[in-house]
Amino acid sequence: MDEVPDPRLATGRDAIVRVVAACVCGSDLWPYRGVTKTIEPKRIGHEFVGVVERVGDDVQRIRVGDFVIAPFYDCDRTCANCRNGFSTSCLHGGWWGDDDRDGAFADGGQGERVRVPHADGSLTPVPDPAPELIPHLLTLSDVMGTGHHAAVSAGVGPGKTVVVVGDGAVGLCAVLASRRLGAERIVAMSRHEARQALAREFGATDVVAERGDEGVQAVRARFDGSGADCVLECVGTKESMDQALRSARPGGQVGYVGVPNGDPELPVRRMFSTNVGVRGGVAPVRNYIDELLPDVLSGAIQPGRVFDLELPLAEAAEGYAAMDERRAIKVLLRP
Amino acid sequence: MDEVPDPRLATGRDAIVRVVAACVCGSDLWPYRGVTKTIEPKRIGHEFVGVVERVGDDVQRIRVGDFVIAPFYDCDRTCANCRNGFSTSCLHGGWWGDDDRDGAFADGGQGERVRVPHADGSLTPVPDPAPELIPHLLTLSDVMGTGHHAAVSAGVGPGKTVVVVGDGAVGLCAVLASRRLGAERIVAMSRHEARQALAREFGATDVVAERGDEGVQAVRARFDGSGADCVLECVGTKESMDQALRSARPGGQVGYVGVPNGDPELPVRRMFSTNVGVRGGVAPVRNYIDELLPDVLSGAIQPGRVFDLELPLAEAAEGYAAMDERRAIKVLLRP
Repeated sequence: MDEVPDPRLATGRDAIVRVVAACVCGSDLWPYRGVTKTIEPKRIGHEFVGVVERVGDDVQRIRVGDFVIAPFYDCDRTCANCRNGFSTSCLHGGWWGDDDRDGAFADGGQGERVRVPHADGSLTPVPDPAPELIPHLLTLSDVMGTGHHAAVSAGVGPGKTVVVVGDGAVGLCAVLASRRLGAERIVAMSRHEARQALAREFGATDVVAERGDEGVQAVRARFDGSGADCVLECVGTKESMDQALRSARPGGQVGYVGVPNGDPELPVRRMFSTNVGVRGGVAPVRNYIDELLPDVLSGAIQPGRVFDLELPLAEAAEGYAAMDERRAIKVLLRP
Repeated sequence: MDEVPDPRLATGRDAIVRVVAACVCGSDLWPYRGVTKTIEPKRIGHEFVGVVERVGDDVQRIRVGDFVIAPFYDCDRTCANCRNGFSTSCLHGGWWGDDDRDGAFADGGQGERVRVPHADGSLTPVPDPAPELIPHLLTLSDVMGTGHHAAVSAGVGPGKTVVVVGDGAVGLCAVLASRRLGAERIVAMSRHEARQALAREFGATDVVAERGDEGVQAVRARFDGSGADCVLECVGTKESMDQALRSARPGGQVGYVGVPNGDPELPVRRMFSTNVGVRGGVAPVRNYIDELLPDVLSGAIQPGRVFDLELPLAEAAEGYAAMDERRAIKVLLRP
């Protein structure tokens, strides 16, 4: 924890958002664990909801006082990639905490205030949300949209069979997204009792605790010795990608959203002989908010149940430790 | 060329087909060139049409005298994979010339007669085709179905933009398939004049002769600096796969049918950051015949135009040489 200067409007398209709730992402654990090196202190956190305090002169859609959801990146929603549904590839956007765009810093979300570039494109206003909705709305920043992206990328739809590899918050949201999209059977791979229970509540019909060859066999045994139509890879390691590819039936599809860690290999010859496709990547959650928000507001889905620990921002360090040690699925932070 | 014993019925589900027309596949050039080793003489050829001479006792749908199209593999069309649309992964099928299934040999198609296992599943009867239709029907054995598979795997449909990498017979059929599926713009990558011309007749709206970085730039320049919705990889080398991946827009899809040669790499980190998916493989052409045959019979598509050299079977060696030296796009052989 450190004190830093308040952010300032750098362009006419910016907004300054006071953070109401933020959270810790599995990917935040990489610098925490030293897997990615951190040379000098930097601001972190990319998931937040908050209230708009100031807007630039060119901002038209977002107003001071709005409660807003921020995706884990900024985007203008007008470029060709945004219009194609892939706002993560916005030609003018970028990432929190990593950039010095427009001559100013775009802060991390684990803080009190954030400068949001392209406020009109990036932010989604939600009129006066009830306090109990806030954790659910916060998941639309990343984790629920990312689980949904895994499902969409794998082609989940009515009647499909699904395997979800990974029981972190993204994997659990991928189970919820698969049920929401009408999957007939959903196998959650998890060896952790509390996560297994939440997976079942989110719609998993089966839980497989085995991994590796045994995990593949346990999955295939549930599908006449073959595999599932759709496999959702929500981890990002070589082992999890291998598990995913071998859990798909011939002609099936792997939707992957785990940030690739340690260069997972895609065995192109095996993919070729089995016609198993691979599709996914960094989730365009801003594009998905329009579809998912009504179900959050109605209570049809309650993705915020992945938060099993809530801490004041000042205790962020304990939040990281709890996630690192797998004592918590996902930690919500309140400034 | 060699004389071998006539094939015999080995199971009640077999048929013996007298070959009327066969052809040479680009993949047949691999053993020809020594890229894949051939230890001892073996029968070759996997694309043929012909007339049924004998059927086993359990064959019900196929009759002696039927003119039939054989796919480049056999399949029962009743197993789960066949029903899922992926008969190339038939749980009971196999490949011509490679197997000793049911205690008998399934011959190659470049010969006078072939034993066809699972005749009811594998063969498609075509009542009394006009002689001029035969080349077009023959393409449903492999090359047209494979081009169609590239398009289907890449998600080609009405209004989509398409790039086809590879100007062999499969690439040209992929152009034709893309037009048939309603693509709005089709860029054929070719530096060979005759193939460029056929690509245009098949529906290509643009031809790009450049390769590598220049090829990628020439493609992107046609799509606002981005790339196409769908890229059809019809070669199978490291270079062609790289070309394909870099020609897709963020969120685009590569459909690949080139048999992977020299382990093309799939750069998972770049795929992740751009959301470019990869899907394809060995084409389930038997499943596609039902959809494509009516358009061949009506003349709506004329995929047999890829045959620009026709030889008697006895001159097969010249057919291989002509394709190897790129003097011919694809060679039709008549026993």
